[in-house]
Amino acid sequence: MAEPLKIALAGLGTVGVGVIRLIEANAALIARRAGRPLQVTVVSARDRSKPRGVDLSQYAWEDDMVILGERADVDVVVEMVGGSDGPALALARTTIEAGKGLVTANKAMIAHHGLELAAKAEDKHVALKFEAAVAGGIPVIKALREGTAANQIERVYGILNGTCNYILTVMEDTGRDFADVLTEAQAKGYAEADPAFDVEGTDAAHKLSILAAIAFGAKVDFAHVETSGITRLRAADIAQAEALGYVIRLIGMADTAAGGLFQRVQPHLVHCDHPLAHVDGATNAVVAEGNFSGRLLFQGAGAGDGPTASAVVADLIDIARGEVGAAFSVPVSELEELAPAATGHRLGRAYLRFMVADRPGVLAEITAALRDAGVSIESLIQKGRAGDSGKVMVAMVTHEGPESAVSEAVRLLDGSASLSEPPLVLHILDN
Amino acid sequence: MAEPLKIALAGLGTVGVGVIRLIEANAALIARRAGRPLQVTVVSARDRSKPRGVDLSQYAWEDDMVILGERADVDVVVEMVGGSDGPALALARTTIEAGKGLVTANKAMIAHHGLELAAKAEDKHVALKFEAAVAGGIPVIKALREGTAANQIERVYGILNGTCNYILTVMEDTGRDFADVLTEAQAKGYAEADPAFDVEGTDAAHKLSILAAIAFGAKVDFAHVETSGITRLRAADIAQAEALGYVIRLIGMADTAAGGLFQRVQPHLVHCDHPLAHVDGATNAVVAEGNFSGRLLFQGAGAGDGPTASAVVADLIDIARGEVGAAFSVPVSELEELAPAATGHRLGRAYLRFMVADRPGVLAEITAALRDAGVSIESLIQKGRAGDSGKVMVAMVTHEGPESAVSEAVRLLDGSASLSEPPLVLHILDN
Repeated sequence: MAEPLKIALAGLGTVGVGVIRLIEANAALIARRAGRPLQVTVVSARDRSKPRGVDLSQYAWEDDMVILGERADVDVVVEMVGGSDGPALALARTTIEAGKGLVTANKAMIAHHGLELAAKAEDKHVALKFEAAVAGGIPVIKALREGTAANQIERVYGILNGTCNYILTVMEDTGRDFADVLTEAQAKGYAEADPAFDVEGTDAAHKLSILAAIAFGAKVDFAHVETSGITRLRAADIAQAEALGYVIRLIGMADTAAGGLFQRVQPHLVHCDHPLAHVDGATNAVVAEGNFSGRLLFQGAGAGDGPTASAVVADLIDIARGEVGAAFSVPVSELEELAPAATGHRLGRAYLRFMVADRPGVLAEITAALRDAGVSIESLIQKGRAGDSGKVMVAMVTHEGPESAVSEAVRLLDGSASLSEPPLVLHILDN
Repeated sequence: MAEPLKIALAGLGTVGVGVIRLIEANAALIARRAGRPLQVTVVSARDRSKPRGVDLSQYAWEDDMVILGERADVDVVVEMVGGSDGPALALARTTIEAGKGLVTANKAMIAHHGLELAAKAEDKHVALKFEAAVAGGIPVIKALREGTAANQIERVYGILNGTCNYILTVMEDTGRDFADVLTEAQAKGYAEADPAFDVEGTDAAHKLSILAAIAFGAKVDFAHVETSGITRLRAADIAQAEALGYVIRLIGMADTAAGGLFQRVQPHLVHCDHPLAHVDGATNAVVAEGNFSGRLLFQGAGAGDGPTASAVVADLIDIARGEVGAAFSVPVSELEELAPAATGHRLGRAYLRFMVADRPGVLAEITAALRDAGVSIESLIQKGRAGDSGKVMVAMVTHEGPESAVSEAVRLLDGSASLSEPPLVLHILDN
């Protein structure tokens, strides 16, 4: 059998340790499939003495993780440190500059610095791989880079954040409100102590910008992902959606239909006949629609040490097999610089929800604004008081129309004394 | 840009023509992703003069398709002829022997001769690829060969035949019986004039044997796939299943849990919470359960010229990029020769349905047989007469138990004058 692929592992949190466990547990079959063994030679983390439940004595220890790639006993570095900049980025740069491959699960770093790193990797003819950065154990980077490579991708979208999907599913099942479910999710370890990254959509936006770059052959443009999270959703929104035949899911969606690059992370009403409506709990799912393949769906665990390790080691096996292709499917120099798409002309249906004072004339004010903006209402529900707040919820679904009309209606109502909070606008995913 | 990959295309049916259309329509993006253009240089089919709706004048024509691989203007042959033996197999052999790559959508040929062809391809260091042979446009071969390569796969299963799934979905939606729906599907072109290959499960068995080989690193063993189709299903079975919270799907399933290789194609009752229960119409879906990745689902169009062409051209792009790995993920010499698994000890729940004469004592006879075989009944439904046939349907679901007990009960009832046809036994997929 050929020489082992010698691996340095930086970062020994749950996921880093998961990689070690996987490589140990499945060593024989990995060697058979890779054509050579994968061998962790050296590890590094901030704290050497921390107990991690795995025997590290057989691996060398490196105090300065940034120089891992410069060691002679290393062919490829696995970066499990996290953070878009700082030590992770320093490590990534020195590794590639040293002519070694890099495998990472770091979506923030790839969303912010992926192009720089990919260009450096091409320059050095080494691999840069990040399957684990998007949708955990689902091999969706590979699916887009290779599996659907024959297609013009018309749209890529999906459920990219397991924490949000878990919270939404529990809200759906229990009728409880967001804040309440979040607290429980934090207690159970399904949500971080600082949940903003997840629940405000940033994590999904990182992943979406990476998927979009590969799907459309465009430069990663995280800065222009239109992002809103799930924090404003109420149990009543979910109940309304259900009554109309929908569930609410945080959807990241990208296309190039209008020429520019459209990227949006937002809660959507998803029709119950759509496959994403059945994606529950911490599961992730990605849909790619190709001009020949039609709609493809990839679904699985979006996080967790096992699934993440599965994706990291799949990248290592590819490297061991000699697969050193362009990180974003085409060389960085050939990625297009697409302007952000204007969204006003996008056609669609929307769910609008207003929290209003319970007094005469409010409904007339709202419907007049919609009329003046040219928004046509398909169905409207006025609900009684929300608790004892004296507020009433007005929810509606519009007919298909341009997004600009809905924005205009919201603008017309801006500052209205009748509204106790800004209107909530959710787009509808029918098919 | 590098030299084009020169392609010979054998077989110009709908799918062969689809490959030409795709390569023409997406030429620029394919060249960017592959790093070089894909160029069809020569085509071959039985009848040169048949109108095909595509301009073939720019391609050379070869009357004798079997020698395509021997031509100097060919790097790789795409075999779209079909049939497990005959010209397809002759072409595959001569192509590989000539040191050229082979891409095929031919599941029957790979199920029967894949090992021989893969060994020859390894010998000649050329690619043998067959993404399109399983689940149409879904890149599931790649997912198993590469995406989940880090995992010990515990179980692989799915909906592998679009015709059957279409028929079952229509039966479900309309309450109509199998024969009726089949006739309509044939009229609409969703089922072949000779539907046996599809509805009796052979096509799904071909695909399952290929998936199992890759997933478990085992030699393809089509001969031992336990296969039954959907022809015996009645509308009443589907209605019963639905009343119990299940749909009926033709599932191909493989595992190695008992040491040997278990491979079965059979209609299953699929619990409505299982992702496969939402796979409707001609869609295919494959589930792979890895020991680190957990459950992964891959879903999409299982047939059709567009999706099939998408898979074929993905293989060509891989070849253009230089990916020439083992067809079954590990070299043929390292594939294990697994004995077929004994199934008697498998634990599970089952749906049993009896068509019986409407007379006293019949139910007692059946339940006595079940008792004597040690089968415990979870729920039992006796339905009134089926039409005016004088027959009554008795359907039940068993508690979890060994398959051997159910087989024994069926054996005890063999030849009973009370039964108008052999009992129907379907396994239940709860999770």
